[in-house]
Amino acid sequence: MTTKTIEATAAAEIRARIDDWAKATRAKDIDGIMASYAPDTLSFDCHSHFQFKGAEALRKHLEACMPCMQGPMTFEIHDLDMAAHGDVAFCHYLARYGATGLGGEAHTGWLRVTVCLRRVRGEWLIVHDHCSVPFDPQSGRAMLDLAPEHSERASAA
Amino acid sequence: MTTKTIEATAAAEIRARIDDWAKATRAKDIDGIMASYAPDTLSFDCHSHFQFKGAEALRKHLEACMPCMQGPMTFEIHDLDMAAHGDVAFCHYLARYGATGLGGEAHTGWLRVTVCLRRVRGEWLIVHDHCSVPFDPQSGRAMLDLAPEHSERASAA
Repeated sequence: MTTKTIEATAAAEIRARIDDWAKATRAKDIDGIMASYAPDTLSFDCHSHFQFKGAEALRKHLEACMPCMQGPMTFEIHDLDMAAHGDVAFCHYLARYGATGLGGEAHTGWLRVTVCLRRVRGEWLIVHDHCSVPFDPQSGRAMLDLAPEHSERASAA
Repeated sequence: MTTKTIEATAAAEIRARIDDWAKATRAKDIDGIMASYAPDTLSFDCHSHFQFKGAEALRKHLEACMPCMQGPMTFEIHDLDMAAHGDVAFCHYLARYGATGLGGEAHTGWLRVTVCLRRVRGEWLIVHDHCSVPFDPQSGRAMLDLAPEHSERASAA
């Protein structure tokens, strides 16, 4: 499952969609973020709610979140991989984020992201996405300090 | 994005793959679970590690997890939806799980699950999956008690 195995045009279009989404996220541009979603999208975000059924529910979530982040926002995409056939595609990546909370505290860390898309009238739209961090079963806490390079379980481990 | 829009044969095959995976999970049958994965799968599980690169890494994770669950295990699939075109497919569902820990304590709750598949030599295999719960940004705790019916953010909220 590598970008090489899908047609170059689809790969470029999907990469542009993901980049547009990340750029809008860094700009805290809710309209820009929502431009990537199909109206009937189903979103699993990393915090606060179990799911968001439909673009309007997701928009309300973003409207609640954005005021809690002050100053410049970091959102970098790493290890993007994708597959597509015809009008169906999925991709996954690791996101390094950084923002400042209302009290001036720094929030930085890594997220796991999966994005599922369909091509509708020539345009790739997100019909489902899933963003998370794992939790520690001993403490019940979200593992917000994990970084991928020292937290994957390697075959040789 | 509904099952209706994809060819009936692919939908039935993918549904069977998901059901086989769930059945093997309930049976704590690691070989049965791993039969659903491509060798180069990339897995984001809900706990303990950031990612599992390759089937062998995922197998070691399962081997570490299974002894911690005693007695019968529940794993129900709800709200399954999928899309497929040619040899690429994705689906998502909500899973209700239940198990008993080593100390006799009950673990029950809901998970969000996304599964991405490719058809390889006629067989649908999982090339990527993502399982999680959201976290509470106030406490930093995983929201293990959330149930979908009272925790989605509805458009009308």
